[in-house]
Amino acid sequence: MKISDLAVLIKGAVEGDDTDVTSLSGIGTARAGDLTFAQDESNLSLAEKSQSSCVLTTVAMRISSKPLIRVHNPKLAFLISYRFLHPLVPTTPFIHPSAVVASTVKFGNNVRIGAQTSIEGQVTLGDNVIIESGCVIKENCFIGASCHLYPRVVLYQDTLLKENVILHAGVVVGCDGFGYVKDRGTIHKFPQLGKVIIEENVEIGANSTIDRGSLDDTIIGANTKIDNLCHIAHNVKIGRNVIMAAQCGIAGSTTIGDDVTMSGQIAITDNVTIGKNVVIGGKSAVIGSVKENVVVWGNPARPLAQTKKQMAVLSWLTKNFSSLSKMVKEKNS
Amino acid sequence: MKISDLAVLIKGAVEGDDTDVTSLSGIGTARAGDLTFAQDESNLSLAEKSQSSCVLTTVAMRISSKPLIRVHNPKLAFLISYRFLHPLVPTTPFIHPSAVVASTVKFGNNVRIGAQTSIEGQVTLGDNVIIESGCVIKENCFIGASCHLYPRVVLYQDTLLKENVILHAGVVVGCDGFGYVKDRGTIHKFPQLGKVIIEENVEIGANSTIDRGSLDDTIIGANTKIDNLCHIAHNVKIGRNVIMAAQCGIAGSTTIGDDVTMSGQIAITDNVTIGKNVVIGGKSAVIGSVKENVVVWGNPARPLAQTKKQMAVLSWLTKNFSSLSKMVKEKNS
Amino acid sequence: MKISDLAVLIKGAVEGDDTDVTSLSGIGTARAGDLTFAQDESNLSLAEKSQSSCVLTTVAMRISSKPLIRVHNPKLAFLISYRFLHPLVPTTPFIHPSAVVASTVKFGNNVRIGAQTSIEGQVTLGDNVIIESGCVIKENCFIGASCHLYPRVVLYQDTLLKENVILHAGVVVGCDGFGYVKDRGTIHKFPQLGKVIIEENVEIGANSTIDRGSLDDTIIGANTKIDNLCHIAHNVKIGRNVIMAAQCGIAGSTTIGDDVTMSGQIAITDNVTIGKNVVIGGKSAVIGSVKENVVVWGNPARPLAQTKKQMAVLSWLTKNFSSLSKMVKEKNS
Repeated sequence: MKISDLAVLIKGAVEGDDTDVTSLSGIGTARAGDLTFAQDESNLSLAEKSQSSCVLTTVAMRISSKPLIRVHNPKLAFLISYRFLHPLVPTTPFIHPSAVVASTVKFGNNVRIGAQTSIEGQVTLGDNVIIESGCVIKENCFIGASCHLYPRVVLYQDTLLKENVILHAGVVVGCDGFGYVKDRGTIHKFPQLGKVIIEENVEIGANSTIDRGSLDDTIIGANTKIDNLCHIAHNVKIGRNVIMAAQCGIAGSTTIGDDVTMSGQIAITDNVTIGKNVVIGGKSAVIGSVKENVVVWGNPARPLAQTKKQMAVLSWLTKNFSSLSKMVKEKNS
Repeated sequence: MKISDLAVLIKGAVEGDDTDVTSLSGIGTARAGDLTFAQDESNLSLAEKSQSSCVLTTVAMRISSKPLIRVHNPKLAFLISYRFLHPLVPTTPFIHPSAVVASTVKFGNNVRIGAQTSIEGQVTLGDNVIIESGCVIKENCFIGASCHLYPRVVLYQDTLLKENVILHAGVVVGCDGFGYVKDRGTIHKFPQLGKVIIEENVEIGANSTIDRGSLDDTIIGANTKIDNLCHIAHNVKIGRNVIMAAQCGIAGSTTIGDDVTMSGQIAITDNVTIGKNVVIGGKSAVIGSVKENVVVWGNPARPLAQTKKQMAVLSWLTKNFSSLSKMVKEKNS
Repeated sequence: MKISDLAVLIKGAVEGDDTDVTSLSGIGTARAGDLTFAQDESNLSLAEKSQSSCVLTTVAMRISSKPLIRVHNPKLAFLISYRFLHPLVPTTPFIHPSAVVASTVKFGNNVRIGAQTSIEGQVTLGDNVIIESGCVIKENCFIGASCHLYPRVVLYQDTLLKENVILHAGVVVGCDGFGYVKDRGTIHKFPQLGKVIIEENVEIGANSTIDRGSLDDTIIGANTKIDNLCHIAHNVKIGRNVIMAAQCGIAGSTTIGDDVTMSGQIAITDNVTIGKNVVIGGKSAVIGSVKENVVVWGNPARPLAQTKKQMAVLSWLTKNFSSLSKMVKEKNS
């Protein structure tokens, strides 16, 4: 593809030779024919030394010896270019002969089912759904159009996926929540009667687990992205556009507002509400509700400035410990 | 079912019309014919506004416009009612034709084996065992009566499950422990010769992993409940009636007493002993043994009152930092 | 095997009767014919009371009533003896008839493929590779000689395993990294074009997840051992001989040097460098780069002595809080 043609598609301006690009890559691995991107001066210098044929960069950046396409957001333009240079090949419908598919499964157009899958009764599969090898879909699930289930995903009964949901390998959706009633030394299992609803454009990382609701449903809002090895307990409601990094755990019946951003290994306790736009620092323990638009961090999590000040005070006290202890001893004597 | 008949089964007293109930649900989703429960005034008010036909509540609660069944513990009565309204349907024995079952596997009565499973030699399956799709059971495992393995569970060789064990999707039992010997810069793998024993009525959540013992066995005591994504290392001994929430990790050769309760994301170090009835707060790091009946919390974990006092002191010091630092400066000058 | 013959193989010296050993076990479970080991006095006493036929111990240890083999490192000698007493049985090549193997897969000698596996096009399998039941190997993977994949491992496309790699059940390698670009409220998925390279003698524990690189590759160095439920993000480079205990998470593009030792449940933030020989204490949050040869611990992680001193100071301040608060009040009044 001529870079002048690509520039039209991504609303950029070509500078330098109107060369051809055939693929994309990072600066470190770029070869002739590759498009790469540079958001700052130092990366532009590295890109110039690479074999890449064209660099996506900003309007503000200096003139270069390489052909450039100047755009508003080079990283965004790079990912959009990826789709133009590697368009999704229209697939043909396919069911691997080793797949076990109940006779009552309803198929949309152009569904692909991999080897060794098992799809139980009353399941509905939307158009262009891809279910890779080794998945198990239990009865009465609904899988919306263009969902992609990577190998070995398990959906328990009644799970509902809206359109364009991506579930990576080993994800389990709809398993029983952790609900018990203790009575005179005996632990009774509480029925887990709700289901899981995952809205459109959600992506969930490998080996994460999403519990079904106990009496209510567990809901994950549209466009939310959840990384690997996360745990979402029963009845949790996660809003739209939430970013949750790896190994986070959300306890039962907690609500997370839209546009919340969470780093990795965060724990949020049960039955609390995290407001919209909250940002939570890595490895925090959130033990209460958090109001909208606040940044929290720590164990237990507190507003960022407060946690940082406490850390600074403790450092200072440690440094000045001999004076401090002398004062206290004098006071006490 | 008439509520007067149900009341006899759950030892409750009917108040109001002797109506029919056909199913159960939470207050938020109750429809006509549903039984629900209310443990307090505000939930009773919500239940009255719902379409539910009958409410399980306590003896102490006020008179209601809805038919009630008064019981000692409404939540417990609800879960017991669930089994009466939805009795387990006696199943018929079944082996899916796609299952691969070694000729030396011993079958109890009424065993059900799902699609795409693999069961290796010398495995014993008790009466009423259910093994769902995609499970892999390696050689010489023993699976007790009425165990239920959800899809894609893996049991390594020699694993022993007693009766009524529930393993959720993706659980791995009996994988090698993390044991190595370093010698002059080389890391040698230490043989993992023990096995895993899981006693009756244990339930383990999705994608949790239980390592086999290295020389000894790993043991999980009866009635213990383990949530999703937990890690139990080699040679760990967990007592009876332990509750362990999601994403906890127990390091090698540690012993956990009966009736211990653990919140989520707790780490317990290796070779320590946690006494009976200990309660451990969320995200704690337990770096030593803990005596019976103590509540601990924090990183590192300490008795709850001590951790809370330290937090309060640090908050106070931070608030009074300017006075404090002035005093120290005056002292030093 | 006569212990005199074993002693030659492990470079030890026999003391006492030249008895026969047929197997190995720990002190607690040793039976007649078993070899066991004792590194200290108290374990030697226990070993003497056991039924074991021979004890591996050090040159420094006292004379015993049991036959001994004295060696430099008893635990190391025990694991080496394991291989002599239980030599690997040469296996025969085997492909289970239920396996689905693309016609373009290249086979080394003596490959074993378990039931219900799926191996896609252009995959190369080295000599003596074992792939157990339920694995899914996507297109264009390379699996080096003597690799062992336990049940239900998933390799995404282009994954490269060098020789002798062991992946335990449920491991996922090559899943998409967690990369998105936010633009005016919309979250776009960034292409994940790199792959995963796992070097020789690496072992990875059950249900761990290793993301593919986004533009670069994710690399795990030779001899590194990773425990269960760990998360390695995109573009991470892990050195050689690294020990990483369970439930650790390494965020994107971070580099970990050779010979680093990590306890469990550690989080390391993105884009930092951990120097060679660093030791990181359990449940630490590493929020910056760490120089070579340092021991760090805490949340956030600091040099061990500093974290310990801060803890001691905080304890002291808590104990002396009444004096301290009185002083501050007097100062302020």
